[in-house]
Amino acid sequence: MASSTPTYKHFLVTYPAPYIAHVQINRPEKLNAFFEAMWLEFRTIFDTLSYSPDIRSIILSGAGDRAFSAGLDVEAAAQGGILAKQDGGATDVARKAQAIKRHVEEFQACISSAEKCEKPVICVLHGYSFGLSIDISTCADIRICTSDVKLAVKEVDIGLAADIGTLSRLPKVVGSFSWVKDVCLSARIFGAEEALRVGFVSHVEPTKEKAIERALGMAKLLAEKSPVAVQGTKELLNHARDNRLADSLRYTGVWNSAAIQTKDVQDAMLSGLQKRKPTFAKL
Amino acid sequence: MASSTPTYKHFLVTYPAPYIAHVQINRPEKLNAFFEAMWLEFRTIFDTLSYSPDIRSIILSGAGDRAFSAGLDVEAAAQGGILAKQDGGATDVARKAQAIKRHVEEFQACISSAEKCEKPVICVLHGYSFGLSIDISTCADIRICTSDVKLAVKEVDIGLAADIGTLSRLPKVVGSFSWVKDVCLSARIFGAEEALRVGFVSHVEPTKEKAIERALGMAKLLAEKSPVAVQGTKELLNHARDNRLADSLRYTGVWNSAAIQTKDVQDAMLSGLQKRKPTFAKL
Amino acid sequence: MASSTPTYKHFLVTYPAPYIAHVQINRPEKLNAFFEAMWLEFRTIFDTLSYSPDIRSIILSGAGDRAFSAGLDVEAAAQGGILAKQDGGATDVARKAQAIKRHVEEFQACISSAEKCEKPVICVLHGYSFGLSIDISTCADIRICTSDVKLAVKEVDIGLAADIGTLSRLPKVVGSFSWVKDVCLSARIFGAEEALRVGFVSHVEPTKEKAIERALGMAKLLAEKSPVAVQGTKELLNHARDNRLADSLRYTGVWNSAAIQTKDVQDAMLSGLQKRKPTFAKL
Amino acid sequence: MASSTPTYKHFLVTYPAPYIAHVQINRPEKLNAFFEAMWLEFRTIFDTLSYSPDIRSIILSGAGDRAFSAGLDVEAAAQGGILAKQDGGATDVARKAQAIKRHVEEFQACISSAEKCEKPVICVLHGYSFGLSIDISTCADIRICTSDVKLAVKEVDIGLAADIGTLSRLPKVVGSFSWVKDVCLSARIFGAEEALRVGFVSHVEPTKEKAIERALGMAKLLAEKSPVAVQGTKELLNHARDNRLADSLRYTGVWNSAAIQTKDVQDAMLSGLQKRKPTFAKL
Amino acid sequence: MASSTPTYKHFLVTYPAPYIAHVQINRPEKLNAFFEAMWLEFRTIFDTLSYSPDIRSIILSGAGDRAFSAGLDVEAAAQGGILAKQDGGATDVARKAQAIKRHVEEFQACISSAEKCEKPVICVLHGYSFGLSIDISTCADIRICTSDVKLAVKEVDIGLAADIGTLSRLPKVVGSFSWVKDVCLSARIFGAEEALRVGFVSHVEPTKEKAIERALGMAKLLAEKSPVAVQGTKELLNHARDNRLADSLRYTGVWNSAAIQTKDVQDAMLSGLQKRKPTFAKL
Amino acid sequence: MASSTPTYKHFLVTYPAPYIAHVQINRPEKLNAFFEAMWLEFRTIFDTLSYSPDIRSIILSGAGDRAFSAGLDVEAAAQGGILAKQDGGATDVARKAQAIKRHVEEFQACISSAEKCEKPVICVLHGYSFGLSIDISTCADIRICTSDVKLAVKEVDIGLAADIGTLSRLPKVVGSFSWVKDVCLSARIFGAEEALRVGFVSHVEPTKEKAIERALGMAKLLAEKSPVAVQGTKELLNHARDNRLADSLRYTGVWNSAAIQTKDVQDAMLSGLQKRKPTFAKL
Repeated sequence: MASSTPTYKHFLVTYPAPYIAHVQINRPEKLNAFFEAMWLEFRTIFDTLSYSPDIRSIILSGAGDRAFSAGLDVEAAAQGGILAKQDGGATDVARKAQAIKRHVEEFQACISSAEKCEKPVICVLHGYSFGLSIDISTCADIRICTSDVKLAVKEVDIGLAADIGTLSRLPKVVGSFSWVKDVCLSARIFGAEEALRVGFVSHVEPTKEKAIERALGMAKLLAEKSPVAVQGTKELLNHARDNRLADSLRYTGVWNSAAIQTKDVQDAMLSGLQKRKPTFAKL
Repeated sequence: MASSTPTYKHFLVTYPAPYIAHVQINRPEKLNAFFEAMWLEFRTIFDTLSYSPDIRSIILSGAGDRAFSAGLDVEAAAQGGILAKQDGGATDVARKAQAIKRHVEEFQACISSAEKCEKPVICVLHGYSFGLSIDISTCADIRICTSDVKLAVKEVDIGLAADIGTLSRLPKVVGSFSWVKDVCLSARIFGAEEALRVGFVSHVEPTKEKAIERALGMAKLLAEKSPVAVQGTKELLNHARDNRLADSLRYTGVWNSAAIQTKDVQDAMLSGLQKRKPTFAKL
Repeated sequence: MASSTPTYKHFLVTYPAPYIAHVQINRPEKLNAFFEAMWLEFRTIFDTLSYSPDIRSIILSGAGDRAFSAGLDVEAAAQGGILAKQDGGATDVARKAQAIKRHVEEFQACISSAEKCEKPVICVLHGYSFGLSIDISTCADIRICTSDVKLAVKEVDIGLAADIGTLSRLPKVVGSFSWVKDVCLSARIFGAEEALRVGFVSHVEPTKEKAIERALGMAKLLAEKSPVAVQGTKELLNHARDNRLADSLRYTGVWNSAAIQTKDVQDAMLSGLQKRKPTFAKL
Repeated sequence: MASSTPTYKHFLVTYPAPYIAHVQINRPEKLNAFFEAMWLEFRTIFDTLSYSPDIRSIILSGAGDRAFSAGLDVEAAAQGGILAKQDGGATDVARKAQAIKRHVEEFQACISSAEKCEKPVICVLHGYSFGLSIDISTCADIRICTSDVKLAVKEVDIGLAADIGTLSRLPKVVGSFSWVKDVCLSARIFGAEEALRVGFVSHVEPTKEKAIERALGMAKLLAEKSPVAVQGTKELLNHARDNRLADSLRYTGVWNSAAIQTKDVQDAMLSGLQKRKPTFAKL
Repeated sequence: MASSTPTYKHFLVTYPAPYIAHVQINRPEKLNAFFEAMWLEFRTIFDTLSYSPDIRSIILSGAGDRAFSAGLDVEAAAQGGILAKQDGGATDVARKAQAIKRHVEEFQACISSAEKCEKPVICVLHGYSFGLSIDISTCADIRICTSDVKLAVKEVDIGLAADIGTLSRLPKVVGSFSWVKDVCLSARIFGAEEALRVGFVSHVEPTKEKAIERALGMAKLLAEKSPVAVQGTKELLNHARDNRLADSLRYTGVWNSAAIQTKDVQDAMLSGLQKRKPTFAKL
Repeated sequence: MASSTPTYKHFLVTYPAPYIAHVQINRPEKLNAFFEAMWLEFRTIFDTLSYSPDIRSIILSGAGDRAFSAGLDVEAAAQGGILAKQDGGATDVARKAQAIKRHVEEFQACISSAEKCEKPVICVLHGYSFGLSIDISTCADIRICTSDVKLAVKEVDIGLAADIGTLSRLPKVVGSFSWVKDVCLSARIFGAEEALRVGFVSHVEPTKEKAIERALGMAKLLAEKSPVAVQGTKELLNHARDNRLADSLRYTGVWNSAAIQTKDVQDAMLSGLQKRKPTFAKL
């Protein structure tokens, strides 16, 4: 894929193994802090990977050793972005509100692209993983982290209720609502052990290198399986999170009425009987 | 009850104590793998127990030492069941889809009978507990397991997104969405310790014997209490899982407007004051 | 605030630090058991604190060493309250049902006032914390407890499905549905360690004194932050719990279209740069 | 079909044209009033027609000239059915409530079978069409009536809030909520003109004969079209009624991902170009 | 009832027949325009009538010949009420937003009291019926009007999206969304004929006197019926409007599990057989 | 605006009066039938108008005298678009299903842009208005038509359940579900009188010229009003359609907490008192 794949300005996208993309937030000199052009590019990348038949699973991490991401680049935002929007001088409150709403909705849509992506996304949190890092990681399917990670829902400390998804998704990815409120209201830093205990991450590795290695192992495992099965599983689990049981069962029935007709089922079963590894067509 | 109770072909149903039924999947020579006649009978059993005034709590386990259930009997399914449905030769895709949808919906309804059952169901997972075992166990109210249990959401490995309820229910019975996606996407085997840590089961016992003993203790405890209170609690908790807070509170108020008129409340309170064990009428 | 603040009959409300209220259930001689006048006053207090610009965070505990609350005062209830309602002699079942429904709905509304309260509520559970204690604590935002706490969803033992909110809220504040059903169906007592493991509480302290101290530390931390940010965070997390993702993101966008226009954002960011503690206007 | 089709005890089912069934409530001597065996048979009939590949549209009417149905046979109900349930002598209120709930739910499920039926149902209302007639007709897809029809939501007049579906469905099949409440609260009789004006029926014919003729014309028209398209349209409209727009669009996309693969699309388009009538395989 | 009933400052409440209350907005010299004290009193009245066993149906109209209500008293609002809230000088946008939100929510709750009222409310619209008149009337159960009524959703003309319920309820009480948007976006005046055609009202009478007479006739008819049946019907229809079919059927089953146990059913049936008018106990 | 505004390939966009855009489907030689490039451009246009401060209301019609639109260009679709997707030769059913789903979702999103557009859209239906015309028009806010219009939900006639929005939206814009099912299942042509009677359109004009004139009059009226009020009204009505009452009221409160702070309210009220026409800042 190497030669024909696009290159990006703020992200490093590599293909460490067949069917696997590794997306790195690539602004290590600023602790991978985000400004507007970055989240627009983030969407482009995940929209592209979502439909690419050459990709079956995705790893997301930050470039460099120090941070997944320090979050929003507050300085940049104060100069021309969302946080500057509110002091536009003469403008009317309702008109400013409309402009902010449009801005927030686009920002949300960019970050949500990782969740909408049809392929599973494994997020490796390491170093500073503040604010927007949490918004982003809650869009991923599987979260793992390094033992030295520093996690925080930081927004309250700049006078904000987090608006790019953390408050909407965190109560749905972690079961302890007391803990969710504790970290969201206090903006306190929490570490790997706590993240594992409450279920925010599902694995901890001692170093970033080991964590990437583990993520790659998981990504490879998923990439070997039927993409019809894997992508259907992601879709149905996301549907279940937001819907009542009866709706979810009904949707599952309709989804599988086409999906089960895939040749992959025969191939997977036959391979199982023959103790060999099946290969599956692209999707 | 012994003489008049029905006997079943694929399940062993016993009554180890007053008001308690023990349902065992009874095909140990095939690791309790399911074929169509079995899930139809499963529904018959739970529908019967649901309305039987002689039953107040139910234990569900697999016969034999080796497995709760290895899941769907894939061989049988490939020959005449759901997984064979997709190669019906001449048939039109939309018409096959309709046939599959009807089949999946009936299969879902059969397994859901354990959840709809008005009496609490305690599921003892032991040995191989793959695929359909997870679908079934997520319909139970309380899950306990043995320390040697081998659990897996296996469907992806046969090219399928699990369709009989696991993907719809698992995100609602376990709080860590990262873990749920990990096990559903990877189909990997996980054990008792992990199941306890994430809250999939609420107790682990060293052996199947001990686990059944514990389940029986729990079942007896529930059977001694007011069936109006116990069955109302199951109903209201299931309602709460699928509904928003305000709806759930409203439904609770209407439910209890009849339930609180039961004589059981007076009897339970009086017995409490008199330090004796109350007995309650059948329900 | 001392001189002008109202005093209450059944609760002790103190102001241990600026912007902080400490509400104590104040009937220690009866293990803080509730009768009707108490939950009516409970609502008055939380409605008042909700709108008071002088309050930014609230601690809730029981007076005395022995109990947060033993729950409903069953004796009082049997004489003239809800549990007596069902033996009104001549009355028609449907008419009694209507009276019960009105009673339950008002009772629910009183307890829900802690959840609707715009300020975060930190609940310190200690000693006996039975029945209504669980209903109340699930309305709080953050739960911490002492290591000797005795917790129980006791209602089944008096012939009732809990109706003041526990069954509606517990599945939404704890991720393990198996555990939730276990404790709600069995009415068994559980302790601090178990409560922490399943995420019902987020911290355990060895004594009531230490727990209050920790709660006070948390309350102070929250009180120093922008009240626009803190109260918005509470609102958005509660909205998220009950709504689907897309609705929650949309609501967040509209909420923040006004909230981000606050001067607090500038103040918080500037203070951050200048390494000093910001102060925020009342809300 | 004549020889092999089942005959029913309380309904007359005929096949007036290819792919069309005409179901008549067949107890004209009692104005087609319902007792329990009838609604159980009603379900059997609609469940059978739903899956029968020989049926593509269904007409539902009452036998005889006088009534579609006078509703519930109150006398029968008072002796041994639902309305007798409440004076079971010694029984506990909560236990009676449970028995009633089970009864109502089964009754609702029987009548709902006409709605769940995969084939479109055209209901011809004529003569007395009281109480249960409205419950039944709101499960049909299309309602037409004779100009002399006498319609009424009669339940209030026997001390009941209608419980078999009218109150749940009527607000969703007629747009004027003021009118819906008027007729449901007052139990007053209304006629064809009013029913047409508010949209409860979509056509009025002068006589029963003419109305059946029109229904047959409509049924034939539907039976000539692709059953994949017709049955999908029914399913998607019913889904839309109960779901929000975004969910409905998403469900439509998944539904059609299989349905559009049908050969019927090619056949229908080709026939359109060739100005001939297409024929479609059974479904 | 005359002597013991409370008198109100801004409303005239009379009892023209047994079990019937007639509530008149009583500020005719200002075309019954509302200021804050009025909507607070409005809530007090409907909350009182809701629980009063002496009332079974309610008529709501405006005092005087000229108007049901001209809507919000804009002058009063501009001086000290909601519309003045936005120019509070020095205050922060987010803090003003919070104050406005609290104000709107309380205003909404006051007007919603007519909808929450357990007894059916018949609203007679006459003369000027602008702005808040529509909010109020959509809370009523049945709307009738005079032929000279002047109706308008006026809020857009003072720079507002209507916020006290019209935009939330109108799409649910009238079936034509095109018409709803037309009148809400344009703020144009519409009359009785149009209101009847689209189903906003269910009857038109030539004069206010005739309309009150008709409302009284309807109110009497409802008051003669079982209050268990009538009030249950209101509750279930309101529940149906806001819930999906399956939820609505389930709620109906639980509701009726207590309601059907009423003696009213036996009395109503027996009276029917004996061709005499039943009387029912208070509720 | 003339010189700087973009021109489009398949649509004619003119600006007949200040703040008003008129969008015409511009392929009259093919009865304005749609192919893929057209719906992509449709989205571009409505997304642009949605944010353009120079536009306050939009008219949508078809170019030429013969048709609003004949619907999907079936020939084009059969060659390379959605309807050709199903015969991709070798491809797997599940993989084709995925391709179709992506295609349908994008198509839906394009057409939905008219609904998401922040400005009100008035749709003028005239001549042939088949298939996709109905999908499009149900996204508009207000529908008017000519007396000679020929309307039809045509999809069933090409073997399809309509998938671009008609089946999802029609039950929500017209109150008579019997009528909705009649026209969707039968694909029959209906005219202006019927469309008006059931509320699908809110006005009928004798000719296209008159209809455009009326639409222009409505558009001008809306354009003179506060855009904060008009656009808020559209947003809140669309929210109400899809949400339950309590959610809708809550959302309204939050929306208006910013919107009411607009200067437009003061200006509108003052202008009202001074009997002059206010002017409002752009939005």
